[in-house]
Amino acid sequence: MPNTAILLISCPDQKGLVAAIAQFLYQHNANILHADQHQDAETGTFLMRVEWDLSQFDLDLETFDSAFSPIARQFEMQWQLAHSGHRPRLAIFVSRYDHCLADLLYRYQAGELNCDIPIIISNHTDTQWLAQAYGIPFQHIPVHKDSKTEAEATQLAILRRNHVDFIVLARYMQVLSPEFIRHYPNRIINIHHSFLPAFHGAKPYHQAFERGVKLIGATSHYVTEVLDDGPIIEQDVARISHRDDLDDLVRRGADLEKIVLSHAVRLHIEHRVLLYANKTVVFD
Amino acid sequence: MPNTAILLISCPDQKGLVAAIAQFLYQHNANILHADQHQDAETGTFLMRVEWDLSQFDLDLETFDSAFSPIARQFEMQWQLAHSGHRPRLAIFVSRYDHCLADLLYRYQAGELNCDIPIIISNHTDTQWLAQAYGIPFQHIPVHKDSKTEAEATQLAILRRNHVDFIVLARYMQVLSPEFIRHYPNRIINIHHSFLPAFHGAKPYHQAFERGVKLIGATSHYVTEVLDDGPIIEQDVARISHRDDLDDLVRRGADLEKIVLSHAVRLHIEHRVLLYANKTVVFD
Amino acid sequence: MPNTAILLISCPDQKGLVAAIAQFLYQHNANILHADQHQDAETGTFLMRVEWDLSQFDLDLETFDSAFSPIARQFEMQWQLAHSGHRPRLAIFVSRYDHCLADLLYRYQAGELNCDIPIIISNHTDTQWLAQAYGIPFQHIPVHKDSKTEAEATQLAILRRNHVDFIVLARYMQVLSPEFIRHYPNRIINIHHSFLPAFHGAKPYHQAFERGVKLIGATSHYVTEVLDDGPIIEQDVARISHRDDLDDLVRRGADLEKIVLSHAVRLHIEHRVLLYANKTVVFD
Amino acid sequence: MPNTAILLISCPDQKGLVAAIAQFLYQHNANILHADQHQDAETGTFLMRVEWDLSQFDLDLETFDSAFSPIARQFEMQWQLAHSGHRPRLAIFVSRYDHCLADLLYRYQAGELNCDIPIIISNHTDTQWLAQAYGIPFQHIPVHKDSKTEAEATQLAILRRNHVDFIVLARYMQVLSPEFIRHYPNRIINIHHSFLPAFHGAKPYHQAFERGVKLIGATSHYVTEVLDDGPIIEQDVARISHRDDLDDLVRRGADLEKIVLSHAVRLHIEHRVLLYANKTVVFD
Repeated sequence: MPNTAILLISCPDQKGLVAAIAQFLYQHNANILHADQHQDAETGTFLMRVEWDLSQFDLDLETFDSAFSPIARQFEMQWQLAHSGHRPRLAIFVSRYDHCLADLLYRYQAGELNCDIPIIISNHTDTQWLAQAYGIPFQHIPVHKDSKTEAEATQLAILRRNHVDFIVLARYMQVLSPEFIRHYPNRIINIHHSFLPAFHGAKPYHQAFERGVKLIGATSHYVTEVLDDGPIIEQDVARISHRDDLDDLVRRGADLEKIVLSHAVRLHIEHRVLLYANKTVVFD
Repeated sequence: MPNTAILLISCPDQKGLVAAIAQFLYQHNANILHADQHQDAETGTFLMRVEWDLSQFDLDLETFDSAFSPIARQFEMQWQLAHSGHRPRLAIFVSRYDHCLADLLYRYQAGELNCDIPIIISNHTDTQWLAQAYGIPFQHIPVHKDSKTEAEATQLAILRRNHVDFIVLARYMQVLSPEFIRHYPNRIINIHHSFLPAFHGAKPYHQAFERGVKLIGATSHYVTEVLDDGPIIEQDVARISHRDDLDDLVRRGADLEKIVLSHAVRLHIEHRVLLYANKTVVFD
Repeated sequence: MPNTAILLISCPDQKGLVAAIAQFLYQHNANILHADQHQDAETGTFLMRVEWDLSQFDLDLETFDSAFSPIARQFEMQWQLAHSGHRPRLAIFVSRYDHCLADLLYRYQAGELNCDIPIIISNHTDTQWLAQAYGIPFQHIPVHKDSKTEAEATQLAILRRNHVDFIVLARYMQVLSPEFIRHYPNRIINIHHSFLPAFHGAKPYHQAFERGVKLIGATSHYVTEVLDDGPIIEQDVARISHRDDLDDLVRRGADLEKIVLSHAVRLHIEHRVLLYANKTVVFD
Repeated sequence: MPNTAILLISCPDQKGLVAAIAQFLYQHNANILHADQHQDAETGTFLMRVEWDLSQFDLDLETFDSAFSPIARQFEMQWQLAHSGHRPRLAIFVSRYDHCLADLLYRYQAGELNCDIPIIISNHTDTQWLAQAYGIPFQHIPVHKDSKTEAEATQLAILRRNHVDFIVLARYMQVLSPEFIRHYPNRIINIHHSFLPAFHGAKPYHQAFERGVKLIGATSHYVTEVLDDGPIIEQDVARISHRDDLDDLVRRGADLEKIVLSHAVRLHIEHRVLLYANKTVVFD
C-alpha cells in the first residue's frame, strides 16, 4: 500500500483552477500519481481527484489545512483530504442472506479492501459462523416493530464505541430511521437488488419476474432519508431468459449484488466517489 | 431462405404433449430442424416452438389445420402456424430521428429481415431521403393535436391498402390511440429509449441523467393501451460515466435503440416470440 | 432439490428421433420438466437433454437401461442417464491463489452446488484455513520437478479412496501428466485466466497487458492432453483501460475467474454439458 | 461543434509537469474544458490530453508552437496540437461486405463524425450504390495478385490528390504492402473480425466456430507492417451459443464490427488516442 494523499475538490468552475492546484502541489514537492478532473458544463461545476506520493512532500497533513486554505477560499472549494495510510473503520449490517457479507469478508481478508472491520451487526444469528471464520466481532441485535428505536440506540452506541467511519448494509432487511441516517450522512452504503429506479421498494425480483424484463440488475447507493433514492455509486445487470424462474433470478442476482456492493465499497474506501446534486462522480 | 414451417403452441402443461406433437410431425414425414419448449412451473403452462423442413412433409399448410385440430383440441392449445416462405408486410412509422429507420432499412436491404416493407409513414418529411435511397414508398401524414383522429384514419386506410401485417414504431413520437392499437393487437413494436420500467414516459435520457444512473438502456416491446407497459421483447444497456453529458447519452443511446429494435423485429418476423401473461417467451 | 432424471443423448440426426424418445418417456409416465435439443446441420448430429420428474415414472433407473436400449441401438445413440438425487463427488486441486477455492466453498455451503466435496488437494498449505473454515478435509501434497510422478500417484490413490467423480483445478499451477488425465477423461475442469485461445500458456495477464487489449477474459474448459486446448465450457470478459495496471488486471481477472469457474462447475454437475467434436453444447 | 484546441502530450514523468502545462494555458487565458492525464508507473511515462475553449485564448495556433516550445523542450515532450475546427480528410477502403461502410456513412451524414470523406476506394463495385446514396465519390480499383503494386500506386495518387489525412479499412480484404503503410504511419485504421490476438489471420469466424468459443469479438487497430498486430484502439465481444451456426456468427459479428470500427474512428478523429509502446491510451 503506497503512502499517498488524496484530495477531493468540488467548486464553481473558473479559469486558473488547475494551475493553482498543480502549482501548490509542485511548490510543496508533491509527486502526482493520478489526477482526474471533470467540468460539468450544465451546472458550471469543477470536480477533481488528485493523489500524490507523500515521501518527498514537505507539508504534514496537519499543516496542509492552513497552507491550502487561501486557495480553497479563493475558489470557494469544498474539499477533503485523505491519507491512504489511514484505514477507515467499517461496520457491516446484515440480516439472513449472507452472500454479500461472505464476499466482503473474503476481500477484506485478501487485502482488497483497505479498511478495518471492527464489528458486524445483525438482527439474526444466521451469519455468526462467517464472522467467526474471519475473526470479526459479531453483535446480535434483534429488531422488532416496537423495539426499533431501542435497537437503533444500541446500534449507535456500538458504532460509537468502535469509532466506526462508515456503514455497509449487506442485505440488511430493515429500513433505518431518518434519525439514524443523520448520524452517518453519505456514509451508509446500501445494495438494492434491482436496477434502480426500476423496482424500488420490496421484492424487486418478484417485480422483475412479473414484468418480464430481459435483464436483472443491482444498485449500490448512499442511503438518504428517501427509500432507494440516494446517490448511485455503482450498478450492473445480467441477462436472463424465460428459462430462469424466480429462484434463478434470486441466485443470479446474488452474484450481481455482491460484485456491485464490493466494488462500491472499494470505490468509497479509495476516495473515488464525489457527491454532487444527489449524484456521484466516480473517478475510477 | 429454407422452405420451412413454424408452429407456436401454448397450452396447459400435461403429460404426453411432446410425444403427441412429435408423433404427429413424424407421421407426416416432417424433418424437424429446431425445437424448443418451456414448462412454466408457476402457471402450469407449456410453450413450444418447432420448425421443420417442408420438402418431404406430406401435408400442405391448408390441410394442416384439419389434421392437427384433434390434437390441438385434446390439449386445449392456442397455436399458430407460419410458413418461412411467407414474407410478412411491415409498415414503419417514424418522426424526425432517423437512426432506427436507417438501421432497419440497411438490414432489410442486406437480406437480414425476411419481410416486405411496402410503406414508411411519417408525421415529418425529414426521413424521406432515406426512404428514397432504399426505394421504399414514403407517406407524409402530419399529426396535430386536433387532427389526430383524422390522421389515424388516413394511416389505417394506407395500412389496409398495403395489406400490412405489422407495424414498427421506429422512434415515432406520437402516442397511438387505443382504437388504432386495437386494429393491430400485439402487432405493433415500439422502441423506448430506457431500460423499462425505469424512466417510462417522456424524456427518459433527461430522467436518467438527472437520477445519475451508471447504465442507460433501451427496450423494445409490443404496444398495448397502457403507455410503455406492453410485453417486453428485447432490452439492452450500455455503461456511461460522468464524462458523458446529456448529448452523449442521446448519441450512445441511439446505438442501443437501433440494435435492440432491429433485433426485436427480427425475432418477431422469425416467429420466435410467444406472448403470455403480458410477458414474452423468446425462443432464440 | 427435485427428484428427477436427466438423459443426455447425441447421435446422427434422423426423422422420428424426438417422437421415439418422447413416446418412450410418455409410455413410462414421465412428467417432462425441461427438454432442449439441437440439430447440428454441418455434421448432421442430434443432441438432446431431457429432464423429467421421477415421482410417477414407472421404471427404476436400473431397468431403464434394458428398456431404453432398443431405441438407443436403433438410432446409434451415445447416451448417459443421471439422477438428480446422486451427488457427484468433487476433488478440488489448488495452489496458492485462493479466490476460486473460496468462491466454490461458499457456493457449496450455500447449497448452490449439488455435489459432495470429500477432499481438497494442494501443493501448498496457504489455503488450509479455508478448508478448515468450511470443514473439508485438506491434503498437502508437495510437487517438485523430480517428484511429480510420485505426487500424482499419491493424488490418484487419494482420489480413488474418496470415490471422486470429477476434479476442479481452482488455479492449480501444475500441469497434469497425460497419464493422470487419462484417469478422468472429460472430468477435469480447469480455469484459465484469459479469453482462450488468446494468451494460452503462462502469465496471460502479463501477455494481455503487453498486447494492450481492451478486455480481459477467463475460460473454463475440460482438461485434455494438449495444454489449454480442451473443450470450452464457459467464458467471460471484463473491460479494462489504461488506468488499470498489471495488479488491477490480476485483481479484476480474479473476479472473472471465480464466476466463470463456478458457473462451469454448476453446469457440469447439473448435466448440462454435452461434449462433441472437441466442443461443448451447453443446455442452460 | 465547439471551437476548441486539443493538446496530446507524452514524455518522461517528472514533478512539475502538470503545473507547467496548466500555468502556460492559464497565462494565455485558456478555459480548460477537459483534461485527462495518466502516469504509467512501469515505464515512467506521463501521458496527457487537454482540451480548451479558443474563444478567449490569446495565442493563435501558429504562434502556439514558439510559445510552447521551451516547455516542450524542458520536459522532452512529444506533442501534437489539433484544432476541432479542422475536419480531417478520410478515405474509406472497402471490398464487398458493406455493413461497416454503411454504418460509417450513416454516422458521417448524421454529424457524428467530425471529418470529411472525399473518396471511397474499392476493389469491387458492390458498394457503389451506397457511395451514391450518400453523395461520396467512389473509385473502383481492381486488385489482382500481379497488379497489386500498380493498384497501390494508383491508390496513393488518389489519396494525395484528395489530401487524405487518414484511411479506414472498412472490411477491405486486401493486405497492404509495407511500402503503402509507410505513407500513413499510425493513420490507417483496420477492423479485424475477432477478439485479437485470438484468431488472427484469415477466416476468424470459422476459427472461432471450430474452437467452440462462447463469445465472438471484433478489434479495431492501427495497421502496422505485421499483420493484425498493430496497436489496439477498441474491442468488444458478444455472447454466442450452440444455437448459432456459422452464418449467425457472421451476421452477429457484423454488428460488433461496425460499432467497434465506428467507435475507433470517432476516437481517432477527436484526438483521444495516444500511441505508446505498440499500445494505445484512449482518453474517453
